[in-house]
Amino acid sequence: MPISQKPSASLAPDTALIERFIAIVGTTHALTEPADITPYLTENRGLYHGASPLVLKPGSTEEVSKILALASETNSPIVPVSGRTGLVGGQVPRDGSSDILLSLERMNRVREVDPVGNVIVADAGCILADIQKAAEEVNRLFPLSLGSEGSCRIGGNLATNAGGTAVLVYGNMRQLCLGLEVVLPTGEIWNGLRRLKKDNSGYDLRDLFIGAEGTLGVITGAVLKLYPRPLGHEVAFVGLKSPAEALSLFEKAGALCGPALTGFELMPRIGVDFTSRHIPGVRDPLSTRHDWYVLIDISTSDAVETAKTMMQDMLEQGLEAGLIDDAVVAGSEAQRKAIWHMRESMSDAQKPEGGSIKHDVSVPIASIPVFMKEAEDAVLAAMPGARVCAFGHLGDGNIHYNISQPIGADKAEFIGRWREINKVVHDIVRAHGGSISAEHGVGQLKRAELAETRPPIETVLMQRIKQAFDPTGIMNPGKVVPNG
Amino acid sequence: MPISQKPSASLAPDTALIERFIAIVGTTHALTEPADITPYLTENRGLYHGASPLVLKPGSTEEVSKILALASETNSPIVPVSGRTGLVGGQVPRDGSSDILLSLERMNRVREVDPVGNVIVADAGCILADIQKAAEEVNRLFPLSLGSEGSCRIGGNLATNAGGTAVLVYGNMRQLCLGLEVVLPTGEIWNGLRRLKKDNSGYDLRDLFIGAEGTLGVITGAVLKLYPRPLGHEVAFVGLKSPAEALSLFEKAGALCGPALTGFELMPRIGVDFTSRHIPGVRDPLSTRHDWYVLIDISTSDAVETAKTMMQDMLEQGLEAGLIDDAVVAGSEAQRKAIWHMRESMSDAQKPEGGSIKHDVSVPIASIPVFMKEAEDAVLAAMPGARVCAFGHLGDGNIHYNISQPIGADKAEFIGRWREINKVVHDIVRAHGGSISAEHGVGQLKRAELAETRPPIETVLMQRIKQAFDPTGIMNPGKVVPNG
Repeated sequence: MPISQKPSASLAPDTALIERFIAIVGTTHALTEPADITPYLTENRGLYHGASPLVLKPGSTEEVSKILALASETNSPIVPVSGRTGLVGGQVPRDGSSDILLSLERMNRVREVDPVGNVIVADAGCILADIQKAAEEVNRLFPLSLGSEGSCRIGGNLATNAGGTAVLVYGNMRQLCLGLEVVLPTGEIWNGLRRLKKDNSGYDLRDLFIGAEGTLGVITGAVLKLYPRPLGHEVAFVGLKSPAEALSLFEKAGALCGPALTGFELMPRIGVDFTSRHIPGVRDPLSTRHDWYVLIDISTSDAVETAKTMMQDMLEQGLEAGLIDDAVVAGSEAQRKAIWHMRESMSDAQKPEGGSIKHDVSVPIASIPVFMKEAEDAVLAAMPGARVCAFGHLGDGNIHYNISQPIGADKAEFIGRWREINKVVHDIVRAHGGSISAEHGVGQLKRAELAETRPPIETVLMQRIKQAFDPTGIMNPGKVVPNG
Repeated sequence: MPISQKPSASLAPDTALIERFIAIVGTTHALTEPADITPYLTENRGLYHGASPLVLKPGSTEEVSKILALASETNSPIVPVSGRTGLVGGQVPRDGSSDILLSLERMNRVREVDPVGNVIVADAGCILADIQKAAEEVNRLFPLSLGSEGSCRIGGNLATNAGGTAVLVYGNMRQLCLGLEVVLPTGEIWNGLRRLKKDNSGYDLRDLFIGAEGTLGVITGAVLKLYPRPLGHEVAFVGLKSPAEALSLFEKAGALCGPALTGFELMPRIGVDFTSRHIPGVRDPLSTRHDWYVLIDISTSDAVETAKTMMQDMLEQGLEAGLIDDAVVAGSEAQRKAIWHMRESMSDAQKPEGGSIKHDVSVPIASIPVFMKEAEDAVLAAMPGARVCAFGHLGDGNIHYNISQPIGADKAEFIGRWREINKVVHDIVRAHGGSISAEHGVGQLKRAELAETRPPIETVLMQRIKQAFDPTGIMNPGKVVPNG
């Protein structure tokens, strides 16, 4: 199990200080009862259990500013909290700590929707699905799409530079955000809410705050990019022999479709089995069984027919080249959603199969077939009977290399080997020049391992940045940066 | 005229120190004769004339590392030099300084071309056109395209986060670069040459070095992204009434073409006149005169016909909506190049018309028509007879707001009003939430004005980053950051 990040000195704020914090937001927007605070102290996977005396729910950027100014003055650690769907323990206070939680849940106002300038300006506490909906209402697309989009919030998406299923063309959050409003640890407000596609006027502060997981300041608002809604949309489900065929097919699809290729997701036989078995409504749309599958998503803006023709041409080329064994193209929006639902529920479908040791890795795309083979061999050598359920964004080089426990194994014992199995997989990732955190971030989960394995100068530079922005170390301590 | 950045204390390196620097690269790769150094002391616009006792031409990252280590040890300021096409004086040593120039011109090796992984790994001294060519040889596209592509170098493109004519879909240099190799001011080498599309493992160091204009370290190598070469390519030249019609047409084109819309450039009547008059081979392809023009570029990857159909549909919609007065579609590659050549030579075409006061600004796209009107009114009020030749990347909100001198005016007197006219235009830019440096960077030219006009906290954060990375202040002093 990952080791919790214990604060070095636990200075519990006294009652008078707690009262000063509460006075900023008002008593109705502060939680002090343990029963009310408990839901904020854990995360989905149950890997971290933190402690905190206080949850504050500010209603405005000004209130966030006052909270951080007081926190700086009194050396009180602050953990920013967004939709609490993070997978690396970044939003959980430290075990045994007196970290104060600052939840953005009340700051959920869409400030402006501008379909001409193609931007949405929103509070950081807006739920992702609400932003998608606001875009749809003006016939635009906000392309960020994640399994947790119904509850995750924009602030957390920004803090972790969220990726998801549309990165292939639209990029991560860094590419989807034009400007930020950030409250610095001192309480100062940086109004960087620009709407400019081009702005070369100094260091890239925006991209430094994005992905910093709340360790450099609290993002309170953002200018997000909107795109035209595609007219043509086609989804295919393809059966094939191995990741090598999938990679060759991806290259063909990329050459043919260019930026119309909006999704290319790899799935293993076992993942299709798990979802068919455990997720209501999911069934394998192909009549015969294959070792591997890809979901191919094509979107075009000019005409419905363009996407149809492109998908047909691409599948024909794949069949002719012997890369595809079987394929089906969704014939309706419901069928398209069903295929995507299979892919998006693959992680949940592992739960009824027992424990799952997870990895969120990326390697250069060309290395995926070799990486998959080497990682499987190494995992099976370390743990015979382990069921590798590795799937993900092949087009981004990003694989969720998940491993379900051997049938009949003891779950706790299996999960107890988390770090050991991580090392097995991550060593291979590193040998391919890959990353052990492709899209979920660092948080508590990967902080120590990253520091141990990356070039020391990189950690030093991060520590210097942390020190420059947060000299008193109050912002989300124990996350991302060693000794940060 | 812009004020030169004079070093506060001019500590000329003594002969012994000069010899130590020369020993690192060898005497054949060091320039000490004033006649040899002179070309490095000015820039294209003639706004800055610096001084330097020494040009070093290292042949490897290790030599760059040794130079910076010695510079740190001896407190010797270093100015990194790439293709010397920068437009803000960033590559010019300070007036009256003893800054040592570090030219990357010998580090021009393409280290690797990988058409499967879709990357090129290259020395920072590679000329942009050579990278484009290396991509073409493996049937890929490196999309960065600038007027100066025949001589500018990748290191400078990265240092300034270069934009150019293909930003609409492909983005600036930040979007075109996956990884960097950087020598830090201490001489330490950061090997961040990753090839990963997704990597959320800490602060975004890459994007901090990109656009820092050599003030945080010297970029020595990069992993650059390759794209499929488009099959279909169409270019149209459209006459229309005003920037308002151009903006409406851009919206229609964006909705119809999505990511196939690869260029949308606005040009004024006077710019078309200047290029037809002064640039050999350029002629107005339309038979009647119009007040404004747009160049529309559409690229598609699936088939030649898709681009043709898309262009026709888009022009028909524009004509029906009354947005277009006349249009011609290039019928051959030669014609496509001719139309682009008109656009790209628009700045050069101003030279025979006398002095030109330049601005490189961006505003939210929706504000362009109002901005253009307000800026023209204000400029003409300040200087009757001034000839506004404002053109640029409408689709990026980026206008090169250039002003040719009134006919018969005294050039030196006109250029003497540079700062005054800058203020007139920039005040309007700021009122629209725009940037006074959209793609050229800050350098010496805009350092003071930015510090005076942007939120003070932003300057403070930049100074803290500068201090964290370059505590002795040896990296390109006098550029970008006030007191940096």
